[in-house]
Amino acid sequence: MAKELTTRAENYSQWYNDLVIKADLAENSAVRGCMVIKPYGYAIWEKMQAALDKKFKDTGHSNAYFPLFIPKSFFSKEASHVEGFAKECAVVTHYRLKNDTVNGGVIVDPDSKLEEELIIRPTSETIIWSTYKNWIQSYRDLPLLINQWANVVRWEMRTRLFLRTAEFLWQEGHTAHSTMQEAVEETMRMVHVYADFAENFMAMPVIIGRKSENERFAGALDTYCIEALMQDGKALQAGTSHFLGQNFAKAFDVQFTSKEGKLEYVWATSWGVSTRLMGALVMAHSDDHGLVLPPKLAPIQVVIVPIYKGLDQLPGLNAVAEKIKKDLEDKGVSVKYDNRDTQKPGWKFAEYELKGVPVRLALGPRDLENGTIELARRDTLEKKILPQEKIADYIVELLDEIQKNIYTKALNFRENNITPVSTWDEFKEVLDTKGGFISAYWDGTAETEVKIKEETKATIRCIPLDTEENTGTDIFSGKPGKFKVLYARAY
Amino acid sequence: MAKELTTRAENYSQWYNDLVIKADLAENSAVRGCMVIKPYGYAIWEKMQAALDKKFKDTGHSNAYFPLFIPKSFFSKEASHVEGFAKECAVVTHYRLKNDTVNGGVIVDPDSKLEEELIIRPTSETIIWSTYKNWIQSYRDLPLLINQWANVVRWEMRTRLFLRTAEFLWQEGHTAHSTMQEAVEETMRMVHVYADFAENFMAMPVIIGRKSENERFAGALDTYCIEALMQDGKALQAGTSHFLGQNFAKAFDVQFTSKEGKLEYVWATSWGVSTRLMGALVMAHSDDHGLVLPPKLAPIQVVIVPIYKGLDQLPGLNAVAEKIKKDLEDKGVSVKYDNRDTQKPGWKFAEYELKGVPVRLALGPRDLENGTIELARRDTLEKKILPQEKIADYIVELLDEIQKNIYTKALNFRENNITPVSTWDEFKEVLDTKGGFISAYWDGTAETEVKIKEETKATIRCIPLDTEENTGTDIFSGKPGKFKVLYARAY
Repeated sequence: MAKELTTRAENYSQWYNDLVIKADLAENSAVRGCMVIKPYGYAIWEKMQAALDKKFKDTGHSNAYFPLFIPKSFFSKEASHVEGFAKECAVVTHYRLKNDTVNGGVIVDPDSKLEEELIIRPTSETIIWSTYKNWIQSYRDLPLLINQWANVVRWEMRTRLFLRTAEFLWQEGHTAHSTMQEAVEETMRMVHVYADFAENFMAMPVIIGRKSENERFAGALDTYCIEALMQDGKALQAGTSHFLGQNFAKAFDVQFTSKEGKLEYVWATSWGVSTRLMGALVMAHSDDHGLVLPPKLAPIQVVIVPIYKGLDQLPGLNAVAEKIKKDLEDKGVSVKYDNRDTQKPGWKFAEYELKGVPVRLALGPRDLENGTIELARRDTLEKKILPQEKIADYIVELLDEIQKNIYTKALNFRENNITPVSTWDEFKEVLDTKGGFISAYWDGTAETEVKIKEETKATIRCIPLDTEENTGTDIFSGKPGKFKVLYARAY
Repeated sequence: MAKELTTRAENYSQWYNDLVIKADLAENSAVRGCMVIKPYGYAIWEKMQAALDKKFKDTGHSNAYFPLFIPKSFFSKEASHVEGFAKECAVVTHYRLKNDTVNGGVIVDPDSKLEEELIIRPTSETIIWSTYKNWIQSYRDLPLLINQWANVVRWEMRTRLFLRTAEFLWQEGHTAHSTMQEAVEETMRMVHVYADFAENFMAMPVIIGRKSENERFAGALDTYCIEALMQDGKALQAGTSHFLGQNFAKAFDVQFTSKEGKLEYVWATSWGVSTRLMGALVMAHSDDHGLVLPPKLAPIQVVIVPIYKGLDQLPGLNAVAEKIKKDLEDKGVSVKYDNRDTQKPGWKFAEYELKGVPVRLALGPRDLENGTIELARRDTLEKKILPQEKIADYIVELLDEIQKNIYTKALNFRENNITPVSTWDEFKEVLDTKGGFISAYWDGTAETEVKIKEETKATIRCIPLDTEENTGTDIFSGKPGKFKVLYARAY
């Protein structure tokens, strides 16, 4: 196996870590819980950002930037919000270092203590709503549809590359509306934007649903999410959209004069996705050979590798390869031609398999004679010999097909791993043997949810949007089931 | 005047602050020294980012992301580096809050004290070179050409929107090379990339030069810069590119095996521009009516305003305006059609003047009869009546002309404000009456430089690249002048 990747069957968790590091996506830094996103990983993130950013702008949002720091007092203005985030906050207390005259090096200058400590934003509702107070006076100032691309910090104790890190990159939308209905519509619009992105760019099927009260964002009245299924049968929350009601408007006294001249509190939403999506992308599709990237997010969509015995054969191969490269680039395909003489073709094949390049072309002297080229698909690992003529057209269509195929494969896996159960024994057995989503009735109480979690580590991932109420029995409590929900163990 | 802008003649500094706030570029936040970049300001920054990012990629660089936090001990590994930044560092000392059971609210949990304090990056050389140590073993790993878009924090005591803020956004390139020559070439390449961006996108002429030792980046062997002149005669450093020698490689023990099999320290560069460029853009071109934006960075390049007496006239105007809008958009021009009925045309005219929209079209019922349209240029404030036919082609060319005209105007101003002097009296007089750059000989000593600064607040902005050595007398010390340099008071 290329660079000795642990197999999924052997140890899924180790496979994931190996892959993230060996495919040059990210690595742990010298700072506890913080990662370095390496150029290849960052190139994928940039593609995600570009696609999402376009969707946000197409739905009327503008980007802006708010401070990294939040004064401690702001933070505690919304009670459940501070409760949810206080235990994992990086706190700035001083603003100067000075030379350590005793031991050498530098120490924190005690004279530089801040009057009020600053919290590194774990999310920006409080600093943003304190700003919105000055921006919103009248219904004419609404809606306010703003997004921010930023880094945030949550001092997690157990971290994993991309999935859970102390610092991560994300976008956070923060919108303000004059009516509850408009805010609810925005909340739903954005969770659908996320689902659309996950399915059409990441090729990752997701279930859209509502969170139970326990799993809600701290400060929200309702949290909607997209939930994806990883290959090990664990779920992953890939994006959330929150209806915040008037909680933050009340905490920061943001009122507006309505058309009717009445003073009312503003309605709010917030929504975000993060570099966690990188982890989801890796785990949803990749295999024991390495990454499998959907073409729409692959930094390199096609790699061309020349096969030659002596360097004298290279010029002829270069000419054909460069022509194919240009044809592809003219059609908007990103291509790398790797004719480095420092590595053998076999090494290159393994390398680009590891990095998930969707299409690999190999070109040798016999191909020059025959006007052919060898094409290998990363998703199916199939190879075939094709005529060089019209190869660019063929590949453009193939990239589409690969994108769809990766999605369909993940969708089939997901569909085969939603198991309806009606008894508690069945629930535990499915969870321990098959995993995946378990569809079951829930009585709607936090008590039941907590007990199930304590006993099995499974949580309610969501109440799918299309769920029906009042039609079954809670598998745990035996009480009337209020919602049909999806349970799973989750990242 | 629109929204009561202070005039430049009245108070240049107040004019700048008024303009930044009233044109919706940025405002001060609730956090000392930190700004909120508002959507209109951020849209300009996004255009800057896109243009710069393309230039970086075209010159072979990739983006990556490194941690926000730097362990205190890393920070002190390069002696002059820590000396330069220690006095303005935000320091994280704790990672948790807890409820204040006595007074309510939250307090920092004393049990969450970090063993080693973390510095919020003021620049990332130290954390990046500690990472490069693991990435670089052989000459085959070089050059390493990486850029990062990030926020950084320098605890400045006196802050001004965009020009000097505690937190700012920037990009920082950090490259590693196997030879000194290659690193020097990279340093020069990037300062020229900045100059090219400043001149061709920002329409802002700059002088490329080398910094005196006093003004060098902390840890660099040489700092190159681009220096621009603002309308009040003060200079502004708009970008820097540093040759770091082997300082950081030695501090973090980054060595590589050369082709010849020898172990050598790696050569380094770093280079950056920041949201400070937004301040430069505002001050270089804008007037008492508001912003003047070069078309290449204007979020809205053309605004169309309908002029009508009754709402019944609007549908006819809409039809023509939407057609022109579409024609322009097909040619890649960004257009806003503002047919809101809530504001009068005069208000809209002032608003888009304030916001620096390069071209304004006004369309009234008489224009419909005559097949004409009124066009106003923001840069010259000229208006004329033109045929609607082929107006899109006309505007595409006009935007080019406006871009050039704004540049030429700034260049003429700059050329008229470089004054050569040969005596100390002359120096002081020019500085106090005319301002601008003063070209004079310098003996090359820090002593002279410091004394001139103490007496006049003027600093050596740079030693222009084309300077000649040993041909005059230092205006202050009377000693032999080693370099012909540019002095100015600066932002």
